Amino acid sequence: VAKLPKKTDFPVSQVRRYLEPGPIVLVSSKWQGATNIMTLGWHTVLAFSPSLIGLMIWSGNHSHLMIRESRECVVNVPTTALTDTVVGIGNTTGAEIDKFSHFNLTTQHAHEVEAPLIGECHASFECRLHDDALVERYNFFIFEVVKAHVAASPKHPETLHYTGDGVFMVSGKVISRRSQFRPEMLD
Amino acid sequence: VAKLPKKTDFPVSQVRRYLEPGPIVLVSSKWQGATNIMTLGWHTVLAFSPSLIGLMIWSGNHSHLMIRESRECVVNVPTTALTDTVVGIGNTTGAEIDKFSHFNLTTQHAHEVEAPLIGECHASFECRLHDDALVERYNFFIFEVVKAHVAASPKHPETLHYTGDGVFMVSGKVISRRSQFRPEMLD
Repeated sequence: VAKLPKKTDFPVSQVRRYLEPGPIVLVSSKWQGATNIMTLGWHTVLAFSPSLIGLMIWSGNHSHLMIRESRECVVNVPTTALTDTVVGIGNTTGAEIDKFSHFNLTTQHAHEVEAPLIGECHASFECRLHDDALVERYNFFIFEVVKAHVAASPKHPETLHYTGDGVFMVSGKVISRRSQFRPEMLD
Repeated sequence: VAKLPKKTDFPVSQVRRYLEPGPIVLVSSKWQGATNIMTLGWHTVLAFSPSLIGLMIWSGNHSHLMIRESRECVVNVPTTALTDTVVGIGNTTGAEIDKFSHFNLTTQHAHEVEAPLIGECHASFECRLHDDALVERYNFFIFEVVKAHVAASPKHPETLHYTGDGVFMVSGKVISRRSQFRPEMLD
């Protein structure tokens, strides 16, 4: 059983810290009493304030309708400790199994949305649908992050970055070039 | 002087291999005879075929108008060998300097667009504007990758993943879980 990182409040305007590096995320949802989880690698940060992110959620995913109808989700960032769980979630469907119970994951109550946080993940971002203008054409949802929860330690956990074909790249090593930045470029 | 990786044709439907992991990219552009380069971390894959990607290009960037008007760009993937160049490009503006000459970068002719490839980058994707529906509201450009060039070696180069605040995560280490995937989930 994976440990539950102790997550605390984190500024929503700074979620780029965890999402801009491009990790695979686990998106949890809840609709009509049922929960679900999907893996997602097609996402981007869009704005600091309001804190906007864009997610491409394919219409063939069981989560698509649940998120479209509930207009909410939670974006959770897993570390390499959850690699096999990430692979399992990506290779099963919520139409057939209850992913939280099947993968022994812990639901935690969110503050602003009905969808649960995934307790085992390093960071969890509660999201409310902000703009559905491109959902019909591209399955592209623009969400506002309305509440963020992050574990303080480790500061730079190893995350998974999917390349397709069953292969992940791992990031965790850090390079700082802070001294070479113009002050107004830092945040 | 950095070496020029030998890039060859790569299927446009597979660019997710290099972009889904979420690296910092260098976006080159050309408009009214001038070229420019910007760093970009806010991007996502949107579709395999046509090969669509979304880029959030802030309107304050000198490149914004050039790309908006020319309706083209090249998305180049640098490796850690170019870390200082990436930082330099991100901390200067094309309004004041010619980035190709200032940073000693090599322009290479693209096949389908006017904007040049960056010779020193590991991969270069020629892009044509596909949909500008969200440019006004979110500075979000949807491009079609119309031609892709990738160096065959190394297979998994070290790439930079920006976290903000002058700090990059590095990925390069690889984990394969191919045997745990359902065949139809592989590509």
